[in-house]
Amino acid sequence: MNDQPIGIFDSGLGGLTALKALKEKLPSEDFIYLGDTARLPYGNKSPRTLKKYLEQNVAFLTQQNVKAVVVACNSASSILTPEFSKSIPILGVIEPGAKAAHQASALRRIGVIATSTTVNQRAYVQALTQLDDRLMVYQQACPLLVPLVEEGWQDDPLTNLVIYRYLTPLLENAIDTLIMGCTHYPMLRPAIEKVTGPHIQLIDPGAAVADELTKVLENSNQLKKDRQNNDGKIKIYTTDVNKDFETIAQRFLSPIKLDGLEQIDLNDKV
Amino acid sequence: MNDQPIGIFDSGLGGLTALKALKEKLPSEDFIYLGDTARLPYGNKSPRTLKKYLEQNVAFLTQQNVKAVVVACNSASSILTPEFSKSIPILGVIEPGAKAAHQASALRRIGVIATSTTVNQRAYVQALTQLDDRLMVYQQACPLLVPLVEEGWQDDPLTNLVIYRYLTPLLENAIDTLIMGCTHYPMLRPAIEKVTGPHIQLIDPGAAVADELTKVLENSNQLKKDRQNNDGKIKIYTTDVNKDFETIAQRFLSPIKLDGLEQIDLNDKV
Repeated sequence: MNDQPIGIFDSGLGGLTALKALKEKLPSEDFIYLGDTARLPYGNKSPRTLKKYLEQNVAFLTQQNVKAVVVACNSASSILTPEFSKSIPILGVIEPGAKAAHQASALRRIGVIATSTTVNQRAYVQALTQLDDRLMVYQQACPLLVPLVEEGWQDDPLTNLVIYRYLTPLLENAIDTLIMGCTHYPMLRPAIEKVTGPHIQLIDPGAAVADELTKVLENSNQLKKDRQNNDGKIKIYTTDVNKDFETIAQRFLSPIKLDGLEQIDLNDKV
Repeated sequence: MNDQPIGIFDSGLGGLTALKALKEKLPSEDFIYLGDTARLPYGNKSPRTLKKYLEQNVAFLTQQNVKAVVVACNSASSILTPEFSKSIPILGVIEPGAKAAHQASALRRIGVIATSTTVNQRAYVQALTQLDDRLMVYQQACPLLVPLVEEGWQDDPLTNLVIYRYLTPLLENAIDTLIMGCTHYPMLRPAIEKVTGPHIQLIDPGAAVADELTKVLENSNQLKKDRQNNDGKIKIYTTDVNKDFETIAQRFLSPIKLDGLEQIDLNDKV
């Protein structure tokens, strides 16, 4: 089983930031990424519909013979239950992200930035207060950040202004830790750090789930034998194509080189 | 038939700007608005799926006994065919918007700002060049404008910066007419005018379809008898609710007072 690939999916291309975190942590592993671009965004779908999508995406990746699945999408992670992990481990981003933030926060004051839907679902708030009910959690919906990343304006005075405006209320609440609760946001880390300064820890749930997955696969002795080898392969599927997707995907993956996107129809496959 | 209401639908709440244009033009008419918020955005759906949504939305409005339907959504308008108008008139925004721009443009140089999907679909480009193949049409996708409106930042230096950046390439192409090809954009008219100045005509396809509908109903003698009366009623249905919807809807409708949103399930109704 050690040589099987690791599966990862997201509603779109943002989860490639989580794939990059996984690749950095596990350079010799092979990865299969599924971006369900035909059905995005997941954020406004009902739990019942999301459960169906989650099952279909996991079934597709299982058919590709993966040894584990990472659910990079925050909305899909929020409905993940232990029974999904019956045959292979299925890990979401919310619990690892919340755990990492809890460990990082000395003052127990944690900020969460995310899409409006994730903020309204309060998934990080619930996961954090379940870990420690003394935690103070401050949320901020940031609807402009995804389109700013998709425009490619990460390093831009305009983006700095938007981030400054969104983070000000969190900074006024004296947070010492900030969860980047959307897969697009790690692309904005340098711009966010300009506003937060050196004393606030930024938590990337994609990196946190990479740590968690490494532990799970280590404990079950399922990692490749030669872990330092950097020859792991990456295969990327999407359920819809659009002329901008390759550009956006390459931006997320950089400096890893994108080797093209392959379109699949989940209804034909699973 | 004169006293029956007029139906209007959009994928979300943006179409309320078109409803406002209709209400200004026809103050005594009653309106029934349907915002299909559970299934938005329409932009990334296949033509086949969009056709199903269009049929369901028209069927729901027909059940409410409307005498005509305005399709405020650009994506849904782009797949509208004459056969939809068999029993009552069904009007989309693209043709009236293109006609109004064609009439306004002396230099035959027209800009179109819209969502990425509308730009990729080239619906306005096709409608315009069909009217006059000498027209030069310049498109600009503006993915940040919808979230800026939904944040309520219409009158904001940040929004001015974003609009300036989006419009600069169009101004460099010496357009004399600009189509606001997304239902959210009329909310940004003052901010857009700051950049375009007094010599570029702004076209609101929602206002253009209001003119067109008035003509259609006048010609068939279907308008209310007392047209100057301002006592027309507005009823708004949405297919999903969210705590922000009432705030956003009120912003779109202002100064008309929002009288609440009613949630319906199209699957139960049609």
